[in-house]
Amino acid sequence: MKHFTKEKLLSLPSRYKAHLINSCTGYKSANLIGSKSNSGISNLAIFNSVVHIGSSPPMLGFILRPLTVKRNTYANFKETGFFTVNQVNASMIKEAHHTAASYDQDISEFSKTNLTETYLNDFQAPYVQESAIKIGCSYVNEYEIKENGCLLVIGAIEHLYLPEHSIQEDGWLSLDKVDTVAINGLDAYALPQLLARFAYAETDTPTKSI
Amino acid sequence: MKHFTKEKLLSLPSRYKAHLINSCTGYKSANLIGSKSNSGISNLAIFNSVVHIGSSPPMLGFILRPLTVKRNTYANFKETGFFTVNQVNASMIKEAHHTAASYDQDISEFSKTNLTETYLNDFQAPYVQESAIKIGCSYVNEYEIKENGCLLVIGAIEHLYLPEHSIQEDGWLSLDKVDTVAINGLDAYALPQLLARFAYAETDTPTKSI
Repeated sequence: MKHFTKEKLLSLPSRYKAHLINSCTGYKSANLIGSKSNSGISNLAIFNSVVHIGSSPPMLGFILRPLTVKRNTYANFKETGFFTVNQVNASMIKEAHHTAASYDQDISEFSKTNLTETYLNDFQAPYVQESAIKIGCSYVNEYEIKENGCLLVIGAIEHLYLPEHSIQEDGWLSLDKVDTVAINGLDAYALPQLLARFAYAETDTPTKSI
Repeated sequence: MKHFTKEKLLSLPSRYKAHLINSCTGYKSANLIGSKSNSGISNLAIFNSVVHIGSSPPMLGFILRPLTVKRNTYANFKETGFFTVNQVNASMIKEAHHTAASYDQDISEFSKTNLTETYLNDFQAPYVQESAIKIGCSYVNEYEIKENGCLLVIGAIEHLYLPEHSIQEDGWLSLDKVDTVAINGLDAYALPQLLARFAYAETDTPTKSI
């Protein structure tokens, strides 16, 4: 077993350290965040930090890197109040990864990939047509993580679109039915296969599959 | 395509809504957080919200539900300053899920599962011996999400333990080599298979596998 102390981690080359620390906490969600400026320039960027914040009311969150350089996604949802969260499916991983390239703010990532910009029910922000599961959000709040300047952004879920066959009777979504991927570190994409679903955990009762 | 508006989501039965909203943002990381009170009672609880916060210094974060009921994990790391993050691997999903059961604070989840409590390098908090990748953290800070009372907890990575064969030359960890799982919603566990790793995204350059 290899052991890194904090001191050893801090002494590692920057890219090595970034790969190691980004992958040591496990697989992450893979989502494309879509937004559009008031001047009409759309933006699409991949995020691996979208987490569940609450169900009632439905909210999600994601971590945004420090605002030391201009972040188009941030500028857009601060200006307009809206953004979309679009799941990355297996067939679109190359295109999704490309949205991480540093295009100028007047260039839409939709114009540089084969992903299709689409608008649903007059929502201001663009969705990704190819994403099986799409979420329209309004910006709610942001919390600055003082330790390194990152932001936790909170969004309220205003619209949720998904294929009928992915929803099970109890509301659970079978993500394997729409080939949703997970992210390993900064640059690797993996396709999960369902192992089991378990009943609500009860004290002194063995875990039961459902 | 099925469409839920915010109003429709709010009107759903509570459990249905929880399953739906917890799974719509994609796969999440699967980690067991270990801690121990000053009086010597250890605690182990599964979390699907651990995210990357920063590499330099190395930090992670996770979302803790509102403190309206006593949270043993929270009480312990506030009292001692330490906790561990232990990846869930495929062979331990039943045991890991069981840690979600509501045991009294004087009962250790280690005593109610086949997971083995272990201590490394005099670190105060217990690790899970069966976890391939283990992280020792010090508590750094917490941010209250005012919208629903959840907390974003920030930890500094003090120790990282992992099998040699999972580390690649550039620091990236091949999580499929240690059977790390991902979580789908509240109660489903999935095993990802690597599809591809891609080179750093550059403008006007097609995505390249590495």
